[in-house]
Amino acid sequence: MNKSNIFPTEFKVSRETRAKLLGQPSLLIWFTGLSGSGKSTLANGTEIALHQQGILTYLLDGDNIRYGLNKDLNFTECDRNENIRRIAEVCHLMLEAGLVVVSAFISPYRSERELIKNIVGPDHFMEIFVDCPLEICEQRDVKGLYQKARMGQIKNFTGIDSPYEVPDYPDLTIKTAEEDLELSIARIITIVKNKLKP
Amino acid sequence: MNKSNIFPTEFKVSRETRAKLLGQPSLLIWFTGLSGSGKSTLANGTEIALHQQGILTYLLDGDNIRYGLNKDLNFTECDRNENIRRIAEVCHLMLEAGLVVVSAFISPYRSERELIKNIVGPDHFMEIFVDCPLEICEQRDVKGLYQKARMGQIKNFTGIDSPYEVPDYPDLTIKTAEEDLELSIARIITIVKNKLKP
Repeated sequence: MNKSNIFPTEFKVSRETRAKLLGQPSLLIWFTGLSGSGKSTLANGTEIALHQQGILTYLLDGDNIRYGLNKDLNFTECDRNENIRRIAEVCHLMLEAGLVVVSAFISPYRSERELIKNIVGPDHFMEIFVDCPLEICEQRDVKGLYQKARMGQIKNFTGIDSPYEVPDYPDLTIKTAEEDLELSIARIITIVKNKLKP
Repeated sequence: MNKSNIFPTEFKVSRETRAKLLGQPSLLIWFTGLSGSGKSTLANGTEIALHQQGILTYLLDGDNIRYGLNKDLNFTECDRNENIRRIAEVCHLMLEAGLVVVSAFISPYRSERELIKNIVGPDHFMEIFVDCPLEICEQRDVKGLYQKARMGQIKNFTGIDSPYEVPDYPDLTIKTAEEDLELSIARIITIVKNKLKP
């Protein structure tokens, strides 16, 4: 190939040049908590609020991961690890691409949240603990999963027969059984905007 | 959670709202061809040219996929299929996120390129055949892979002991052994811009 020198080989489109183009740094906002704690509602509200402020976002959750990229995986320990590893790698690529990624996964283990943080880089990671008592999550039981878990039809269900490890130092904790949704989103946006400042 | 109704449940940030925010539709520009044919050079040049025109892009290639998301995969037929499937799913997510994705993978089989096209949707897919005679690719042998393949140190190497299936109806063919790089990029940008028109 005749490499006429219009493209200086040292120039590459990078995370930095994309951030400049978009006028935003990239960030991963990671919601963790029990099934039914309100992660998806908060993540969706956060994404909408950021989008309305002109920020390019993407929401990753079970809906777009489990039925696509990770549809070959089950709920064995090995597959759960692989599930989180792939999610982390996709988040990493999306941060490179310049996005603010909002994600909602139970992610019950400290070790897996640490893995995510390390793969994307601590400076680009924000952990939000969606704190809601198990009894209330179980009362809500939007998807009927707790009932199935209690009946033994689902094994290793977080909160029932599998542990949830509370984050030690989350960037923010939202108590969804007590707090108003609108106010919670406002609190989230405040710290996110602070993190997004140049 | 107290769902005060500030977020109408029917509103979601979507591919369409992101396209509006960015002022660009999303698109996958898929470069296919032999190892050493010039895919990466063309893909990189294409990305730079688009970026300079204010388009948000991301380049996917072996470098950022094989050492991250797909580092658990080998070159068996089964793993190669899984490699392409995951790449397609990541492309799909990135198109949902609003990006113009530029990708450079040998992708020797028609069936795998069809799979990509089906997963991301034909309207968002553009195939560019990087056409270069095997002899010239082998002469270039930038990574020394052809030599290893000839010596039997790499098995199932495309063009040597594994077939490359030429695309039947690519959107564009670039003959890198004959065409000037600058002109090739210009041709690519013309058809890409045409596809990106609202």
